[in-house]
Amino acid sequence: MWVRILGNSSGGPFQGRHYSAQWVHNQRDYFLVDCGEGTQEQLYRYQLPVDRVNQIFITHLHGDHVFGLFGLLTSYSLKGRQRPIQLYSPPGLSAFIQDVARHCGIRFSFPMEFIEVGDERPEKVFESETLEVSTVPLRHGTCCVGWLFREKPRPLNIRPESIEQYGLTFEQIRAVKAGADLTLPDGRVVANGALTLPPKPLLSYAYCSDTAPSEAVAEAVCGVSLLYHEATFTDEHIEEAAAALHSTARQAAEVARTAQAGKLLLGHFSGRYADTEQHVRQAREVFPNVEAAVEGVEYAVGEPTEAV
Amino acid sequence: MWVRILGNSSGGPFQGRHYSAQWVHNQRDYFLVDCGEGTQEQLYRYQLPVDRVNQIFITHLHGDHVFGLFGLLTSYSLKGRQRPIQLYSPPGLSAFIQDVARHCGIRFSFPMEFIEVGDERPEKVFESETLEVSTVPLRHGTCCVGWLFREKPRPLNIRPESIEQYGLTFEQIRAVKAGADLTLPDGRVVANGALTLPPKPLLSYAYCSDTAPSEAVAEAVCGVSLLYHEATFTDEHIEEAAAALHSTARQAAEVARTAQAGKLLLGHFSGRYADTEQHVRQAREVFPNVEAAVEGVEYAVGEPTEAV
Repeated sequence: MWVRILGNSSGGPFQGRHYSAQWVHNQRDYFLVDCGEGTQEQLYRYQLPVDRVNQIFITHLHGDHVFGLFGLLTSYSLKGRQRPIQLYSPPGLSAFIQDVARHCGIRFSFPMEFIEVGDERPEKVFESETLEVSTVPLRHGTCCVGWLFREKPRPLNIRPESIEQYGLTFEQIRAVKAGADLTLPDGRVVANGALTLPPKPLLSYAYCSDTAPSEAVAEAVCGVSLLYHEATFTDEHIEEAAAALHSTARQAAEVARTAQAGKLLLGHFSGRYADTEQHVRQAREVFPNVEAAVEGVEYAVGEPTEAV
Repeated sequence: MWVRILGNSSGGPFQGRHYSAQWVHNQRDYFLVDCGEGTQEQLYRYQLPVDRVNQIFITHLHGDHVFGLFGLLTSYSLKGRQRPIQLYSPPGLSAFIQDVARHCGIRFSFPMEFIEVGDERPEKVFESETLEVSTVPLRHGTCCVGWLFREKPRPLNIRPESIEQYGLTFEQIRAVKAGADLTLPDGRVVANGALTLPPKPLLSYAYCSDTAPSEAVAEAVCGVSLLYHEATFTDEHIEEAAAALHSTARQAAEVARTAQAGKLLLGHFSGRYADTEQHVRQAREVFPNVEAAVEGVEYAVGEPTEAV
């Protein structure tokens, strides 16, 4: 599973940063997560296969997370796209896009399916062959959801010697791969764990922006391999963070620690900061495995991190 | 008078081009003309004094000319702007912006004045100390207006020798500068032209995009110093141009010739063209003083053009 940062700015195109957007790729799934103004250009800049996207996940309807959507959808239409696109978001996106289309006289060439969700509790909304996607309840003053991408359990790998030892049939192999124990002709039961190799850990990625620090977030993303958590401010501006329902880098790190995340990526930086050194330093006092998200970089979810 | 090209693409962020937007600057006036997605970033890229803009002129409500407006206005608001902003456009922009603000929960920190105009005939809509701005009726299937920026007549310069020769008083000098003839004590009349230096020609700039070729455009911009005319296509795609109510470069040149423009800038290029050599070559067969608009370049209106 891979995450490419397309934009990590909170306020606008300042300090060379762009509005919020990410590209999440796993096997045959290509997702766009948030779509601030200029996302299309970022997609072209990094030569991403934009036409492969079938699902777009939006956190909330503030402009810095959605103003790029209209141009992107218009471009799909100009290119004659016919394949449907699914848009997952808090309530209101469907009406929003319909209003924009009406004002601009756009008739889309492809169907859109809107799946509008609440932010009261985590909810699984999408499932592909290899991945499932759930909401993460955020706290931002408007209906706002993070998105959790989780690998689905894969068939187990059987220890090669088991097949011969027990003379497993094709059907027995399938059952054991799916997690079943084996019952022998004499009635004895061999535990699945003795027949299969230890499963690889399932990878997961959570995108949590925008939000005030929240126990509910930590709970929903518990054990996540990679957590992207907004860190709009440094300690110095903690009151401003609280007033605007944003987080400081340290607060993001506290969420990562509570959630026992594998690694924390900080993002959604306020335009007032020329660099993100303070963010990382303050977060690292709480949670050591932390980086500031860098635009254009592709992060491998669950990869061991080099010492920083 | 200066024009900075911020975007010269028709369809999207292709071939390194950006959506339509221009920066027009004359004396104390700073105007934004059209505002496609990404305009804000272009304004920062070229370090333009974005906060000095008090008037924005929009040609029509197609997304590639307005989708950058919401982010720009939101950013003004985040910066606490209080000075009003005037938005000139075809009907519907006010309702459009209100709808977007409602969907996103934006409350602007500054008042907006909407001046919505028709495209039946040219109409003067704005006047500053040194400049006036009129609409140009375009032909694009939706209400669409070009924008003509014209220097206002300046006080004439008196020939220094006239003052002594006729013993001009302060009041007489003011009248002559304003264009009056001089009546001598003996009743003889001295024509204004004999007392003043020949006036410098008044400069003008017309922005005409998007439009099919149109006599009405040529008429409205007659004698313009610099004409920016859309040239979405080359000869090869003339039928596509007609169907979409766009122009070829040659057709743009025909308009420039009919209008006796000083110079023609071609723009709004389709993303299918990697370069604009064909556009310029085909236009030049009709109208010699032509260039393809280049993003980032600041064009001086009415400057003599170097040989190309």
